[in-house]
Amino acid sequence: MSEYRQDPLSRRWIITGSDRAARPNEFLEPPITRQPGPCPFCAGNESETPDAVSTYVLNGGKNWLVRVVPNKYPAISTDQSVDRATAPLSAGSGVGSAGIPGFGRHEVIIESPRHVASFTELIPLEAEFVIRAYRDRLSQLKAERRYAYVQIFKNVGPAAGASLEHVHSQLLALPGVPEAIQQELTASGDYYRQSGVSLLGKLIADELAAGTRIVAETDRFVAFCPYASRFSYEVWVAPRRHEPCFEDVEDGQFGELSRLMQDVIGRIERTVGQPTYNYFLHTQPFDMPAAGHYHWHIEIIPRLSKVAGFEWSTGCFINPLASESAAEHLRAAVEAKDVPPGKNSEAASKMPMTVVDPFPLP
Amino acid sequence: MSEYRQDPLSRRWIITGSDRAARPNEFLEPPITRQPGPCPFCAGNESETPDAVSTYVLNGGKNWLVRVVPNKYPAISTDQSVDRATAPLSAGSGVGSAGIPGFGRHEVIIESPRHVASFTELIPLEAEFVIRAYRDRLSQLKAERRYAYVQIFKNVGPAAGASLEHVHSQLLALPGVPEAIQQELTASGDYYRQSGVSLLGKLIADELAAGTRIVAETDRFVAFCPYASRFSYEVWVAPRRHEPCFEDVEDGQFGELSRLMQDVIGRIERTVGQPTYNYFLHTQPFDMPAAGHYHWHIEIIPRLSKVAGFEWSTGCFINPLASESAAEHLRAAVEAKDVPPGKNSEAASKMPMTVVDPFPLP
Repeated sequence: MSEYRQDPLSRRWIITGSDRAARPNEFLEPPITRQPGPCPFCAGNESETPDAVSTYVLNGGKNWLVRVVPNKYPAISTDQSVDRATAPLSAGSGVGSAGIPGFGRHEVIIESPRHVASFTELIPLEAEFVIRAYRDRLSQLKAERRYAYVQIFKNVGPAAGASLEHVHSQLLALPGVPEAIQQELTASGDYYRQSGVSLLGKLIADELAAGTRIVAETDRFVAFCPYASRFSYEVWVAPRRHEPCFEDVEDGQFGELSRLMQDVIGRIERTVGQPTYNYFLHTQPFDMPAAGHYHWHIEIIPRLSKVAGFEWSTGCFINPLASESAAEHLRAAVEAKDVPPGKNSEAASKMPMTVVDPFPLP
Repeated sequence: MSEYRQDPLSRRWIITGSDRAARPNEFLEPPITRQPGPCPFCAGNESETPDAVSTYVLNGGKNWLVRVVPNKYPAISTDQSVDRATAPLSAGSGVGSAGIPGFGRHEVIIESPRHVASFTELIPLEAEFVIRAYRDRLSQLKAERRYAYVQIFKNVGPAAGASLEHVHSQLLALPGVPEAIQQELTASGDYYRQSGVSLLGKLIADELAAGTRIVAETDRFVAFCPYASRFSYEVWVAPRRHEPCFEDVEDGQFGELSRLMQDVIGRIERTVGQPTYNYFLHTQPFDMPAAGHYHWHIEIIPRLSKVAGFEWSTGCFINPLASESAAEHLRAAVEAKDVPPGKNSEAASKMPMTVVDPFPLP
């Protein structure tokens, strides 16, 4: 028997728990094929991308592990200006309103010099540097005081919208706060005014107490399948402690977070049999006090099923797999190898590193 | 140069007009392949579906043209009850709220006895009966007084979420009004209170006056690419006259609307080279006065590109193709054949027909 569920943070509704996974599917999943040609993200092909914004190398090493570069085909650009008084992405509306110039930055975080596809294929130090690069770019772009929000996201596999296979994330630095973040801020603010505590903090405490939707945990972070998951095997990763801003994540936490991310994505890949997913960071917008009620988190969405007309029309997702069952499967999907991912990361996080930043920020 | 645009009705933001369509794509679009086996929607296989709710046949004919049947794998069901006081899909929220039983109806409209895939492959009379079936089921389900909203939608092609190839639409009769419809009602109501006119009616008048985003028109209906299209070649079809409720569409209009829908979808298919799209109806919820400010319309979204992490995270869509360019391409994509689609529909709409309804409604 199916049920309607509402996510308290986004206030989105879903329909879940039906037996629809058993329905026939005439269409065979075709194999993924790639065009031949050199990869612009591989070591040795650095001239194929614009000059790096940041490069992460081990101290004394000659080779980079992670590079942050401007997107060669940007969706938005700083060649255009925007008047903050008419900042886009805010709720207001108007009939016949003129377009607002596409001001912003669009960057790519290249996560390894090697041609691998998924976050789980990174060596622990690469994964740790990726998390560090997210934090650093958020912090640096905040300091520029030109942006309201930075959206960090990852597409893995063509079904998830990736156009290149080589493991990478992207960021858009935006002049306004996107609608989905605004909705979460509204719900979070309403709850804070009623109760005096953080909405996601309360949800996490409840999830830890119940345990049924927990996937994995570390000292500082927890991974769980949200009550009203839009997608089967959707997982959210968040700090246990109340932390509004991802740019305030401390240096010592990168390895712990990257290990948990690799662990969780590995469980998803073993369960669904393919690396096709998106993940994205939700963090507090820049123009808010540091001690806000918002709680940063990363949402991981496997892309197993195609989103269809009902979802596009209504905003309500049909997810056949209830999140308790998803969490149970993911808890059981332990690593078969002798060496768990991230085992060497503890040592790596203590290594000194050099960040080469050829474009010093103002 | 790209720009930010907001849709006045949904209040969604998009980023459009960038040159991202030129970016490299390593992944080759694989061919679609089908599993072998009989099609449950083809004539002769009627026993493979639950008993029909409605069957449309020509007067005196023995063979059906359109059948409406319960979905064999329903997402929601009337086996469950729901208390209208706790109706789902409404805006309110709560931490730890319990799930609401998945009450509702899930039906399939089989649009032809022949195994064809797209709405453009229907003979004119089939297409006309499909529109009539939409109107009839809306009207009948409204009369049951158990539902707040009926969502009619179509998935064509596996990338659009179809699991069966045979041309069909679906409907879900829901105990609450979905979030996306509520948002449009809010924007429409706000505008009506300010101006005394319908928001979509005003938008359509502006589009007709400007002409740049018009794709096709008939005496009663207009098809245009909305200013802030989420998807490349997105088209909305709406009546010129203010009509809140699709269930009030009159008998004489089915052929005109189905011809325009076949014309527009044909233009999309000729432009993008494949039949992969969703369309869905937005109409006024049942529990509102007939003379409301809402204006029904059908949204057609071709599924060319995969939706990626940025869109899932923010709710803001990146659409490289500005809607003026999309409309220009679609206006130029005229039918090459001598016989325009829908040519015979005028005569067909005058034929008497019998609607066999084995399950009379209360």
